[in-house]
Amino acid sequence: MTYCVAISLDEGIIFASDSRTNAGIDLVSTYSKLYTFGIDGNRQFALLSAGNLGTTQAVVTQIKRDIKSNAEKNLYNMQYLSDAAEYLGIVSRQQQEKYSLPADSNNGFNPESTFILGGQIGTEPHGVFMIYPQGNFITVSMQTRYLQIGESKYGKPILDRIIKSTVSLEDAARCALVSMDSTMHSNVSVGPPVEILAYRKDALKFEDYLYFDADEAYLLGLRHAWDDNIKQAFSKLPSLQWGSFDKKLCGG
Amino acid sequence: MTYCVAISLDEGIIFASDSRTNAGIDLVSTYSKLYTFGIDGNRQFALLSAGNLGTTQAVVTQIKRDIKSNAEKNLYNMQYLSDAAEYLGIVSRQQQEKYSLPADSNNGFNPESTFILGGQIGTEPHGVFMIYPQGNFITVSMQTRYLQIGESKYGKPILDRIIKSTVSLEDAARCALVSMDSTMHSNVSVGPPVEILAYRKDALKFEDYLYFDADEAYLLGLRHAWDDNIKQAFSKLPSLQWGSFDKKLCGG
Repeated sequence: MTYCVAISLDEGIIFASDSRTNAGIDLVSTYSKLYTFGIDGNRQFALLSAGNLGTTQAVVTQIKRDIKSNAEKNLYNMQYLSDAAEYLGIVSRQQQEKYSLPADSNNGFNPESTFILGGQIGTEPHGVFMIYPQGNFITVSMQTRYLQIGESKYGKPILDRIIKSTVSLEDAARCALVSMDSTMHSNVSVGPPVEILAYRKDALKFEDYLYFDADEAYLLGLRHAWDDNIKQAFSKLPSLQWGSFDKKLCGG
Repeated sequence: MTYCVAISLDEGIIFASDSRTNAGIDLVSTYSKLYTFGIDGNRQFALLSAGNLGTTQAVVTQIKRDIKSNAEKNLYNMQYLSDAAEYLGIVSRQQQEKYSLPADSNNGFNPESTFILGGQIGTEPHGVFMIYPQGNFITVSMQTRYLQIGESKYGKPILDRIIKSTVSLEDAARCALVSMDSTMHSNVSVGPPVEILAYRKDALKFEDYLYFDADEAYLLGLRHAWDDNIKQAFSKLPSLQWGSFDKKLCGG
């Protein structure tokens, strides 16, 4: 599996990803799931991927080829971020269709990939999109400022509590790391290295980035601090007074 | 959906359940998912259920009929808790098979239910079992003292951090409530009332129980305290120093 999250804020965007891939429990590997494209001063894109690694690599290859050959539609000639999301959906479907099997040959193979694409084009607003395997896509809302792909549930509660559009990039990065750490703690298919990329609104280049191996001091420190702080937070909860058991209240 | 968790401790067992059922988003109802059976001083069982409500009710009805008719196998004449788990698996499969459709009639109907059964019989040790729709079952390990059914992922990280066999019943109950609250916060298909039942080792009766409506003061207080404490815990995390972006490190 995979866990990736992108958080869209007033100040810019945080992209976070793990690096574990597996095709069966004895075929576990490390692949970055963060890809970047861009022309400094003109436009920047970051892409996060979850799902079939063959599809992901084929999609990234096609994006690069389209840029290189200056195809009619490519990431470097689009005017709007939503056009880029639509283009990504088309490329993703094309690559999936090459390997799709007839519906009745249910052998468990699944070529689907899901993507998050974010960034900024010129003076257009920065933003993030999640592109489904079917090619359609969504962006964030005013209330829900993040998009997740892969093993998303374990790390969702902390995002729901902390993330608002006014949160700083640094706080959002720490929140993404806590979300990632909770996921790695509860699910072995999500694992380091962890990558965090920040995009600062209107910078039109990527500058701030973090790459954490499993034994990196800051990540270990954050993990221990969070574990301690959570235990403290738990110990400060209001104490509990039992009521008496009433069989009529419960199902019987 | 549903979220239920049972936590097996040195001191006894905590059972926790939500009460929301849904068969489509316009058919949302409230049903307790906690059922108890027992003879005070002799044996006690608590049952938590997730999945098809028809199957769950049919299983509970059959359990009660088997007790009433003093069937050859019923909860009141078994010697071991694992026999009770095996019996529950057989009853569950029988009820599911009544309504199972041919494999090729893929109309989305699913009669499956999953159960957690826990309690104590006489001088045998107390324990908990999760019974899968297929009828087989597992219990806890020394390291993993809890079993979850239904929408289990959102509430897992806090259990992983707090629960050990030496935790008190009161702390485990609070941890189950935090786990439940995180799940209700992130997933609308899990909802109040919340029930918590404690079984104290060797008591052979149920005494301590809590039933929380959505607006119950303790549950609201716990929710706000946890939210505040988490935000404080987050604000105390070590601050972050950005590194510079290196396109070679990420996927490209």
